[in-house]
Amino acid sequence: MNCIFCKILNGEIPSYKIYEDENVYAFLDITQGTKGHTLIIPKEHIKNVYELSEEVAANIFKTVPKIAKALKISFNPIGINIISNNEEPLQSVHHFHIHLIPRYENDGMKLSTINNYGKVSEKEFKEITNTIKQNLI
Amino acid sequence: MNCIFCKILNGEIPSYKIYEDENVYAFLDITQGTKGHTLIIPKEHIKNVYELSEEVAANIFKTVPKIAKALKISFNPIGINIISNNEEPLQSVHHFHIHLIPRYENDGMKLSTINNYGKVSEKEFKEITNTIKQNLI
Repeated sequence: MNCIFCKILNGEIPSYKIYEDENVYAFLDITQGTKGHTLIIPKEHIKNVYELSEEVAANIFKTVPKIAKALKISFNPIGINIISNNEEPLQSVHHFHIHLIPRYENDGMKLSTINNYGKVSEKEFKEITNTIKQNLI
Repeated sequence: MNCIFCKILNGEIPSYKIYEDENVYAFLDITQGTKGHTLIIPKEHIKNVYELSEEVAANIFKTVPKIAKALKISFNPIGINIISNNEEPLQSVHHFHIHLIPRYENDGMKLSTINNYGKVSEKEFKEITNTIKQNLI
């Protein structure tokens, strides 16, 4: 199994965990397209929306408001885009995922998000992680 | 109440209905950013993701795979983007909604979708609607 998200789930690749329950796992997107950019994934390896059962879909999305609220409290964005890309042209990891992308004035965000990998330090990643975790209601 | 989606729900404004159950209503986006562009909304007037309960969020999203599969069977897109914009800069109707936007080669789709209102006839709207409904699994 060469899925990067499965490797994150089994701990083979480290991640900045925001939230976890028996069904889903949420963590910072390494690119941080904007500050707080978070991914939510099912623990089960499901390729895309077409393979989602109703039950798994429900389990994933019911966590979205919780994390969105935490992002709002944390960073006071002007809004938030919730995006799931499936197949072409934008799905790069073939394990279903939902992006939570807080929006800010002049944040440069387009459907293709900015890759800030290498610009955000480990310290900053941890601070952002902790802030969000503290604000989970 | 001056909400256009509530007016669609109560029949005051007509819509091209794709799917309905006790909790949600799905219909063609009048702009048809791409062929088959569909909206899913809760029947309850909920402004945005921050006001969604876990239960309502689950109810909305569990319908997404069903409709996505129908869109794939109907039009054989190369992929599908699932998008919910909340607050600025992109939420134009303040009743929570999820866009299902099938993707095609060179479809011109960006995060701001193309407005095809006036370019798609009522007949074509109905044909698209019927095709999708027939393919609901």
